[in-house]
Amino acid sequence: MPRTAETASFKFNHTMIRVKDPQASLKFYQDVLGMELYDKHEFSDFTLYFLAYNHEGQELTLDEKRSTRFGREGILELTHNHGTESDPNFQGYASGNSDPGRGFGHIAITVDDVNKACERFEHLGVPFKKRLSDGKMKYIAFILDPDGYWVEILSNSLELNRT
Amino acid sequence: MPRTAETASFKFNHTMIRVKDPQASLKFYQDVLGMELYDKHEFSDFTLYFLAYNHEGQELTLDEKRSTRFGREGILELTHNHGTESDPNFQGYASGNSDPGRGFGHIAITVDDVNKACERFEHLGVPFKKRLSDGKMKYIAFILDPDGYWVEILSNSLELNRT
Repeated sequence: MPRTAETASFKFNHTMIRVKDPQASLKFYQDVLGMELYDKHEFSDFTLYFLAYNHEGQELTLDEKRSTRFGREGILELTHNHGTESDPNFQGYASGNSDPGRGFGHIAITVDDVNKACERFEHLGVPFKKRLSDGKMKYIAFILDPDGYWVEILSNSLELNRT
Repeated sequence: MPRTAETASFKFNHTMIRVKDPQASLKFYQDVLGMELYDKHEFSDFTLYFLAYNHEGQELTLDEKRSTRFGREGILELTHNHGTESDPNFQGYASGNSDPGRGFGHIAITVDDVNKACERFEHLGVPFKKRLSDGKMKYIAFILDPDGYWVEILSNSLELNRT
């Protein structure tokens, strides 16, 4: 069914996950995965961070990034409820991959060289849920973000994902 | 921090959620939200559906969609574990927004006219978690997908999201 005029403007703008410690999460999504901060909103009891890949081929100011934030896809929103990062009683968030709490599964990053990407993650000390060598699907890996959310790493090549 | 060569190819390709009944979910994401099926993989005990918005301005064959599936952002992967749709003991999936299972929050769709989009959802009988008129943030709404996952609806205009 082709798109109708009623939904012609629609875009899958973002996915939101809650994080315990924004400093750990920003380090992971920026330094390990290469995303950039596109926007930030501070409220009295929580702060929202919007991260995305910059595909423009040039550095952008935060204002330039903000101006494109609603008209594009591929944004990751991190919600930080203030205090969780230092609360000894905070239980942590559910990854969505075990009961109770099963539902959400993962986010996925496509890359041009899965082997090289995974070697770099190993070098950086990133924990893996599934290495390329584990299981049947040798062409995908899963790494874990600081809250334990699964991040799939797979090739951006159709052919490599068919083998 | 600008992107380095090591992450220059990275894209936030997809977000995966589990669904109880793919017929209900496909109807929702295709007919209500206007996404299209970009790929489908059937395994013995589960099936994966990949949905996305077609921004090409023309109809694409499934092969054409598949060929772009790994090189773009904004893909939604639905995982159907066979049998859940007709299992009277299946408890349903967690939305991620209440304990236990709190973590994932929502996906979000940006649209050119939030009021018109919400009027259409009302007309189609889509359940709302938050209508535009509810709460403080009058410029965003949340609708519920067939599994109870929250789908935020907001404007694609920077200005409207600052008011």
